[in-house]
Amino acid sequence: MVVVMEQAARASEVAALVAKVESMGFRVHLMKGEERTLVGVVGDGRPLDRGQIEAMPGVDKTLAVLRPFKLASREMHPEDSLIALNGSKVGGKKVAVIAGPCSVESRSQLLETAHAVAQAGATALRGGAFKPRTSPYSFQGLGVEGLELLAEAREETGLPIVTEAMAPEQIPLVAQHADVIQIGARNMQNFNLLQAAGKAGLPVLLKRGMMATIEEWLMAAEYILSQDNPQVILCERGIRTFEPSTRYTTDINAVPAVKSLSHLPLILDPSHGTGNWEYVTAVARAGIAAGADGLIVEVHPRPQEARSDGAQSLRPEVFEELVRQVSQVAVAVGREGPIRP
Amino acid sequence: MVVVMEQAARASEVAALVAKVESMGFRVHLMKGEERTLVGVVGDGRPLDRGQIEAMPGVDKTLAVLRPFKLASREMHPEDSLIALNGSKVGGKKVAVIAGPCSVESRSQLLETAHAVAQAGATALRGGAFKPRTSPYSFQGLGVEGLELLAEAREETGLPIVTEAMAPEQIPLVAQHADVIQIGARNMQNFNLLQAAGKAGLPVLLKRGMMATIEEWLMAAEYILSQDNPQVILCERGIRTFEPSTRYTTDINAVPAVKSLSHLPLILDPSHGTGNWEYVTAVARAGIAAGADGLIVEVHPRPQEARSDGAQSLRPEVFEELVRQVSQVAVAVGREGPIRP
Amino acid sequence: MVVVMEQAARASEVAALVAKVESMGFRVHLMKGEERTLVGVVGDGRPLDRGQIEAMPGVDKTLAVLRPFKLASREMHPEDSLIALNGSKVGGKKVAVIAGPCSVESRSQLLETAHAVAQAGATALRGGAFKPRTSPYSFQGLGVEGLELLAEAREETGLPIVTEAMAPEQIPLVAQHADVIQIGARNMQNFNLLQAAGKAGLPVLLKRGMMATIEEWLMAAEYILSQDNPQVILCERGIRTFEPSTRYTTDINAVPAVKSLSHLPLILDPSHGTGNWEYVTAVARAGIAAGADGLIVEVHPRPQEARSDGAQSLRPEVFEELVRQVSQVAVAVGREGPIRP
Amino acid sequence: MVVVMEQAARASEVAALVAKVESMGFRVHLMKGEERTLVGVVGDGRPLDRGQIEAMPGVDKTLAVLRPFKLASREMHPEDSLIALNGSKVGGKKVAVIAGPCSVESRSQLLETAHAVAQAGATALRGGAFKPRTSPYSFQGLGVEGLELLAEAREETGLPIVTEAMAPEQIPLVAQHADVIQIGARNMQNFNLLQAAGKAGLPVLLKRGMMATIEEWLMAAEYILSQDNPQVILCERGIRTFEPSTRYTTDINAVPAVKSLSHLPLILDPSHGTGNWEYVTAVARAGIAAGADGLIVEVHPRPQEARSDGAQSLRPEVFEELVRQVSQVAVAVGREGPIRP
Repeated sequence: MVVVMEQAARASEVAALVAKVESMGFRVHLMKGEERTLVGVVGDGRPLDRGQIEAMPGVDKTLAVLRPFKLASREMHPEDSLIALNGSKVGGKKVAVIAGPCSVESRSQLLETAHAVAQAGATALRGGAFKPRTSPYSFQGLGVEGLELLAEAREETGLPIVTEAMAPEQIPLVAQHADVIQIGARNMQNFNLLQAAGKAGLPVLLKRGMMATIEEWLMAAEYILSQDNPQVILCERGIRTFEPSTRYTTDINAVPAVKSLSHLPLILDPSHGTGNWEYVTAVARAGIAAGADGLIVEVHPRPQEARSDGAQSLRPEVFEELVRQVSQVAVAVGREGPIRP
Repeated sequence: MVVVMEQAARASEVAALVAKVESMGFRVHLMKGEERTLVGVVGDGRPLDRGQIEAMPGVDKTLAVLRPFKLASREMHPEDSLIALNGSKVGGKKVAVIAGPCSVESRSQLLETAHAVAQAGATALRGGAFKPRTSPYSFQGLGVEGLELLAEAREETGLPIVTEAMAPEQIPLVAQHADVIQIGARNMQNFNLLQAAGKAGLPVLLKRGMMATIEEWLMAAEYILSQDNPQVILCERGIRTFEPSTRYTTDINAVPAVKSLSHLPLILDPSHGTGNWEYVTAVARAGIAAGADGLIVEVHPRPQEARSDGAQSLRPEVFEELVRQVSQVAVAVGREGPIRP
Repeated sequence: MVVVMEQAARASEVAALVAKVESMGFRVHLMKGEERTLVGVVGDGRPLDRGQIEAMPGVDKTLAVLRPFKLASREMHPEDSLIALNGSKVGGKKVAVIAGPCSVESRSQLLETAHAVAQAGATALRGGAFKPRTSPYSFQGLGVEGLELLAEAREETGLPIVTEAMAPEQIPLVAQHADVIQIGARNMQNFNLLQAAGKAGLPVLLKRGMMATIEEWLMAAEYILSQDNPQVILCERGIRTFEPSTRYTTDINAVPAVKSLSHLPLILDPSHGTGNWEYVTAVARAGIAAGADGLIVEVHPRPQEARSDGAQSLRPEVFEELVRQVSQVAVAVGREGPIRP
Repeated sequence: MVVVMEQAARASEVAALVAKVESMGFRVHLMKGEERTLVGVVGDGRPLDRGQIEAMPGVDKTLAVLRPFKLASREMHPEDSLIALNGSKVGGKKVAVIAGPCSVESRSQLLETAHAVAQAGATALRGGAFKPRTSPYSFQGLGVEGLELLAEAREETGLPIVTEAMAPEQIPLVAQHADVIQIGARNMQNFNLLQAAGKAGLPVLLKRGMMATIEEWLMAAEYILSQDNPQVILCERGIRTFEPSTRYTTDINAVPAVKSLSHLPLILDPSHGTGNWEYVTAVARAGIAAGADGLIVEVHPRPQEARSDGAQSLRPEVFEELVRQVSQVAVAVGREGPIRP
C-alpha cells in the first residue's frame, strides 16, 4: 500500500502514521516530493485495513498495490486450472457448451430439451429448480421435484447437471442431484452461501454479480477456494450499465482480463448478457473468439411458453446452429468446439 | 402491457398473438398506426410474462404499463406508513437518526459508542455482529457475542438495536436480540433471506442493493410485506456508478421518487453513500432536506482503529455536530429533528 | 506517480524503467516489497505520461498521486472564489437561483417567464437560444432572435442573462448579449469551445458532462481558467446511471467533494438532474442543504406547451414555492436565500 | 406513443389530453383497463413531444413506440450500406482494419508506422493531428503539419487516411487532406460539428460517445445523414461503466444490436475499448466474430515513447499477429480478412 499524505500534512502527522504502521509490523519507505509526502508500506502480504489508515489525520488517500485475491490469482498458480465435468474438462482445449431451459417446468419440457441439446453437442445440461425471481408473484421453480427431473434427464442423456442453489440449507439437496452447483449473479456476495457451496466438494459455477467488479468476483471465488475446494468455474453473464436496448452489457473485456489475472476457467452466458435471443449467437461466437472456455445458453422447445426468460431462450434448431458456428470459431482460435465443424 | 409489433409483422402473426393473449384470459385492444400495430393487453392485474410475448414471431418489444409492486405501492396505501421503534415512530414528523459502529468489536468499544450517540440524540443503535466482507480474510464480526453486547448496550442506554442478518438460519438468533433486522445491500435480492426476515415479525430495515433499480428495491420489499409483515423501512445507501472519487453515489433523487411511489418510510445512509467521513454531514443534511424520514450513520470512538469502515466513520463529536445541523434542516422543512436546534 | 512492477519483473526491467524516468528529469525512490517492487517517481509537478510508463516491459500499472488540475484546485487557491453576477456574487453567503425556460420560444413566453421568476426572487434569467437536441428533427432554438429577446428581457427585469453557446463561432454573438456563457453537458469536453469561451472574458457556467468524472470536469474548468479567465461557475446536472425511473441521477456527493477539491462556486440543476418536475423542489432543497452555492431551474408558464423539457419545467407558482422552501433551508445551513423566509 | 394515465386520473383529465392530441392532428385510441387508462396516439410518423404530454395533469408517463431515427434505420433501408474507401468497401464481405498511431508525432514516427501497418495488411491509416485531451497541459497534436504528414504517408503507402476533426472550422482543412473524417467520442453530440462534417461530402467515422445509448448514437448519425451524406461508418469504442480494471467496457452486444437496427457499417475499436494492449487482440477477434465490419487499432513503433495512448498501442509485430488471427476468425464467420490466413 502507498499512503498519500495531504499537501498540508504536518510532520507530526507523518510521524504518527509511520509509528502506527510500524507498530503493526510493517516496514515503511518515506518519499518526499515537491508537493506531497508518500509513505510506502511494505509487509509480508498480510492485508492492512485501508479504512484505519484513511481515518488518520493528514492522510489524503491510500493506493492499493497488491491484488487482494490469492488462491484465485494466476501469480500464485500460473497454469490454467482444469475442472472435470463428467468425462470432459472445462478449461482445456475443447470449449464446453452448457445448455438447457431457464427453469425446469415439467418432465416433458425438460426431457425434450435435454435430448435436443445433447444431440446438438452440448457438454452439460442446465436447468433451474430453485429460481431467484425479482417478483414474489412470479414462478419460483419446482424445487425438489425439479432436481429429481434433472437427475432423470442425466440418466437418459448422460449429460452432467448444472443447477442453482439459493440458500445454504439447499446445498445438501442440490449436491445430491447435481454435478455442478451454480451460484447466481444476485447471490455472488451471499458469503454464507459461497462458503456452504465450497464445502460441498462439487464444482461451483460462480456467476459474476451484475454490478460486481472483476476484483470482487475473484474475491467471491476466493471464499469458495478457501474451503479447500479448487473447482470454481467463473461465468461472465453481463453487467448493468446505462444502455437500455439490451438486458445487460456483456463485458467481453472481462475474458482476457480474467484470463490474465486468474487461472480459473471462464465461461460466457450470452443469454443473460443480451436478454434477446436474436443476439445470442453473435455474442456466443465473440466469447469463444475472445478466449472463453465455454458457454452457458438458455434453450427452450417453445420459448413463447417458457415460464421465465422466454425472450432470450433459443429454439433447439437455433441452438444447433449456434453450436456449429461456435465450433468453427473455436477452431479458428486454436481450440476445439463441441462438434467437428 | 402494450405489445409493439415489428413493422414487417404479418397479419397472421398479429392474429396469433391476439389468440394467445385472449386464451390466457386477457382482453385485447388493437391499434393500427401508419408504421406499426400495437396490441394493448388489458386484464385483472395479474402479471403477464413479457418473455413469452417477446418470444412470439412478429413481436418487436413489450412496454410495461403497471408497476409490479402492490403492497409497497402508494396507490394501494395512500397514507404514509409509520413503523414503531421503541417509543418513537419512523416515518412520522420527527426524523430518526440511527447511529453506531460498523462492527461490534469489543464491549468497551460498543458501550462507549452507544453512550456517546445516545447523548448526542440518536434514536437507535446500529452495530454489526455478522459482517458481510468482500474478502474472506477480513474481520467477519463477533457473531453471537456481538449480539449479546448489543443487547447489553440497549440495557444500558435504552436505545433500540438495529443489526444485520446474513442468512435465513441467523434470523431467529438476531430476532432474539435485535429490535430491527437489517438486510444488507449485497443481500437485497437474497430472496430466501427476505422471506425469513419477513416471517420474524420484527421491523426490517431493507438496504437498497448497490445495483438495484428503485423498482427492484420495492419488489424486494414486496417479498417481506407478502409475509404479512408491514414493517419495512427502506434505506438508500448509494448506488454504483462510474464516479471513482466517492465510494458510491448517493441517489438523492430516490428520496422524492420513493416517496411518490411508496408509503414506506425511507432513511438515508450517508456513510456508505459517500465512503468518506468528511462528506457525511453534508449528505446527511441533503437527505433530510429532500424528505427522508431519517438517517443511519457510522460512528466510532477512534476511526483509525476501526476493524471496518474507518474511513467513513464519524468521531462522536463530529456526530454530535451532525445531529445539531440535521435538526436545523429538519425544522426548515417542517419536521422535527432528534434534538431541539 | 508510483509505478507497480509485475511480480515477475526482472531486475533489468526495473533498471530500464529507472533509467528512462531519470532521463526525463525525475527522481526515483525504489521500494522492494515481499511480492512487488514499487518505483516512486518524484518531480517538479510536471505531468508524466502514464501510457509511456505502462507500455514498458515488466510494468504492471501506475498509480496517480497528484491531482491533474492546478488552477481549479483548492490547494492552489484555498479561499472560495466569488463570481460577480450583476450586483450579486455567486459563491458568497447568499445562494443564487437562476431560472427560466429551457428554450426561448417567443417574445411573450420569455417575458412572461422573466417577470414571474424575477418576482419570485430569481437572481438571473436562463433561456436557450441555441439548443443542442438529440434529434435533428427537434426544435433547434430561435438563434440570434432568441438572444435579442433575452437582452430585451434583461432590459425589462434587470435580471442578468445565462445562455448557452454550442460552437466556437457562436461565442462572439452570445458574449454580446449574455452575462454568463453556458457550456452544456454534451460539450463539456468540446475543448475548442472551452478555449473560445474562456477567451470571451465573461463568466462561464460549466455543466458537468453526464458521463464525466469530477476530475474530468475540473480539468475542463482548467481549460477555461488557463485562458486567464478565473470566472468559472460549476454546475452539477446529474450523471447517467442504470436507474431508469429518473432522467439522470443527481450526484449530491459531488457537492461536498467539489467543495473540498476546488475553490470554484458550484450550483445544482435539479431540473435536468431529475427530469421530473415533481421531484425538482425536493432535490433543490437537498442541493442547498449539501452546500451548493445556488440552483439553476427550468420554469415555463405552460409546461404542456413547452417546445423542450416540458416534463421537468415548473409552473411559476411552483417555482415561487421552491424559492420559499430553499430560502428556509439556506438559513438553516447558515446562508441566505434569495428571499427572506 | 402510448400515454399512461395515473390511476387516479379524472375523466376530465383524460378528455383534455385527448383534445390536445387531436388538436395536434393525431388520432387517438382509448383503452380502459382495470387500473389504468391508456391513450394510444397514432399519427403520420411526425414526432410528438413527450415532455408536453408528460406535463399535463393526470398523466403518469409516456411509452415510446417508434424509434426516432429514420435515415439510419434498417426498416427504411433493409440492405447493408457499403462505404467506398479507396479501392475497397467498408461493410462488405471483407473486414477492414484501420491502423496507425494515436497521434502523429513526427515524420519518421508516422512513416515508419504507416509502412509497417501497410505491410501487415491494413486497409487504411489512422493518426490524429488535432487531439482532444482531457488536460490542457497534454500534447494537443501537430495540427496542420500533422495533416500534411498524413497526406505524405498516403502518397508513400497508398493507404487512405482517417483523421479526426474537433471543430466545425477545422472541417475544410481536414477534408482537404483526409479520406475519412473521424468524429471522436467526446464530440458525438457536438451537433454543429456533425452537421459540418456531414456537409463535407467525405465518409464520416462516427465514434460512439462513452456514455451514449445506441439510440443516441444512431440519432447522431442521423444528423450527418440528414446533410445528404449517406457515408457514415459507426465505431463502437467502449462505454463507461463501474468496472475499473479496463479503461472502458467494450459493448460487444452493440454489434448485433446495431446490425439489427441499422444498415450502416460498424467497426470496433479494441484499443480504446480496453485501454490495455495485452487485451486488444482478444477483443479484436471477438468483434469480428460478433459480426463487426472492421477494426480500428492503435499501433506505435515504440509505445513507451508515444505521446498519447502508449499503454494501449500495439508494437508492429503484435499488430501483424492480430491481423493474422483476425483473418482466421473472419473466415470462420463467413467473411474475408485483410490477409489470407
